[in-house]
Amino acid sequence: MDRRSFLKTTALGGSAAAATTLAAPAYAQGKRTLTMVTSWGRGLAGVFDAAQKTADNITAITDGQLTIDVKAAGELVGAFEVFDAVTAGQADMYHAADYYFVNQHPGFAFFTGVPFGMTATELNNWYYHGNGMALHDELGEIFGLKSFLAGNTGTQAGGWFRKEITGPEDFNGLKFRMPGLGGKVLGNMGASVQNLPGSEVYQALASGAIDGTEWIGPWADEKAGFQEITKFYYTAGMHEPAAGLSAAMNREVFDSLTPSQQAAVEIASGHANVWNLSQYLMNNGAALERLKAGGVKVLEFPDSVWDAMYEASGAVYAEFMGDDIFKKIYDDYQASMTASSGWLTQSIGAYRAQRDRVLG
Amino acid sequence: MDRRSFLKTTALGGSAAAATTLAAPAYAQGKRTLTMVTSWGRGLAGVFDAAQKTADNITAITDGQLTIDVKAAGELVGAFEVFDAVTAGQADMYHAADYYFVNQHPGFAFFTGVPFGMTATELNNWYYHGNGMALHDELGEIFGLKSFLAGNTGTQAGGWFRKEITGPEDFNGLKFRMPGLGGKVLGNMGASVQNLPGSEVYQALASGAIDGTEWIGPWADEKAGFQEITKFYYTAGMHEPAAGLSAAMNREVFDSLTPSQQAAVEIASGHANVWNLSQYLMNNGAALERLKAGGVKVLEFPDSVWDAMYEASGAVYAEFMGDDIFKKIYDDYQASMTASSGWLTQSIGAYRAQRDRVLG
Repeated sequence: MDRRSFLKTTALGGSAAAATTLAAPAYAQGKRTLTMVTSWGRGLAGVFDAAQKTADNITAITDGQLTIDVKAAGELVGAFEVFDAVTAGQADMYHAADYYFVNQHPGFAFFTGVPFGMTATELNNWYYHGNGMALHDELGEIFGLKSFLAGNTGTQAGGWFRKEITGPEDFNGLKFRMPGLGGKVLGNMGASVQNLPGSEVYQALASGAIDGTEWIGPWADEKAGFQEITKFYYTAGMHEPAAGLSAAMNREVFDSLTPSQQAAVEIASGHANVWNLSQYLMNNGAALERLKAGGVKVLEFPDSVWDAMYEASGAVYAEFMGDDIFKKIYDDYQASMTASSGWLTQSIGAYRAQRDRVLG
Repeated sequence: MDRRSFLKTTALGGSAAAATTLAAPAYAQGKRTLTMVTSWGRGLAGVFDAAQKTADNITAITDGQLTIDVKAAGELVGAFEVFDAVTAGQADMYHAADYYFVNQHPGFAFFTGVPFGMTATELNNWYYHGNGMALHDELGEIFGLKSFLAGNTGTQAGGWFRKEITGPEDFNGLKFRMPGLGGKVLGNMGASVQNLPGSEVYQALASGAIDGTEWIGPWADEKAGFQEITKFYYTAGMHEPAAGLSAAMNREVFDSLTPSQQAAVEIASGHANVWNLSQYLMNNGAALERLKAGGVKVLEFPDSVWDAMYEASGAVYAEFMGDDIFKKIYDDYQASMTASSGWLTQSIGAYRAQRDRVLG
């Protein structure tokens, strides 16, 4: 029996979960230090901050009953090894972008961002008041995880290129860094796609191992220094209309917490979610101006590229529709997006158009 | 010396604050029940939920060390009396929309919503990563309050009318319910503006005491039942591009809490902020469809109305610019909005336009 089958068997069993809960009082006495492994280099703008904020929130509101010790990528395990470390019990929790784990299950992509999918607002709508959190739970239980959204980068930039993109044919043969389902879309357009942790992207770009990369947005990208190597920067992309970040705890560890401590983890994560999104969105504007002043050419993909991306995304979704859980999440996600996007257009969208018009 | 001057003198004094802090250990032993008065009728959709969520969050994560007892409007004090009740120490904290208290200080309007001001995302950007929270603190200290954003309705609908609005002249003589600076804008356009608590609006509309009203958006408005009386519903309005809700604690009570309890109040409020915004935005779309199906005519104000509202808003802002604190907040708010709005247009705005285009 492989580990995943084992976890599926035990974590989904109601009686096993009940037994774990009964053990809680023994764990709950006295202070505990929990280890949070992350996919982020120490101090990596925004993403590491979100992990640290989540951890600090938990430590503060439990008055140190739970003290969260944050490990950067590589300090305990590598950036993409955090999932396996937590499911195996080597670490207590991780902070990461769940779409790094599409090979564990493609359904994880929805809790970060998917091509032509939800913006941050739409993701929160689905997560907190649709079925998003329940579906995250359902997926997590397969692997013995209890997850919460705990950060968001907002709509990510299309990325950095060495030359201008004039049509979809420019992606043919391009060596490009893009994780998740978005990367598979570019792959379908002929790109040679790589999934590198954030802390390794600069070196790969500088050495020519990749021709271009997406990372996050102006503020984080500027701090990463991509403008030192590439000069063509595309704003909105299709790949991550939002990028939710997750705090995921080993399910047995979570079940061993007191109800109050469990609430602390959930509420601390929700606060980090809004705090982190606004961190990016407050800083991106000024960063973009600095990038422009430094000679970066800021562009939008032409419609022909968006059209080709949309066409290529169809095959990516189709690839996974045979998986019942993926399809279940996809259907619910699309229904929620449709249900909430119309009012956003009629309220914020219409208001912004009028404000922009009258303010000139 | 009136009470406000007294509060100004003592609450701003560093030594007085220090003395309060020294008293904290005596308070901190044992469980405490704090009373939260609110501006909301019990169960009022969204707004009361935000208050209850904030309270439940605090109770849960402090494991009942702080138990928050929520009072609906009228149970202890009236909807608009909560500010005075908390500053006077009659209640420990309030949950309300701070623009109800523009007569206490016009600067409070910025922490709910102001004409042609910030959307919810922009407000969070300013609050958590600009100077918003610090300015809220500065204003709160004058009155002996410590406040946190703890909810948001999103961009509010323009409101309910008995007949179609074809131009700005239709506001002349109109008896309309609208609080805050938005109401003053309509007043400048000739409307007879009233500020009524949410729980009193339906009756006023039904009796003809008012001709029309804004309240929140499709979901909350439908629950309030305005479609039973009026049939013309305008979507986006200028008056509350977002409506932040505040949890505000008596400053001496807040200072008497342990650092961990103070963190609990802050983090509980932040979680309620994102939770409540997504509650409205997840429910508005379906509610709007139901309203339409029930015969409500859903419209947008013509450009001539937006232009007149913008012109009328200038005089409203000018009226308060002589107040140093108002001007200080206004200047910082405008600078933050400008700094963050551009990237929102280039990222979420551009993405939404492309997604809508390719999805058809």
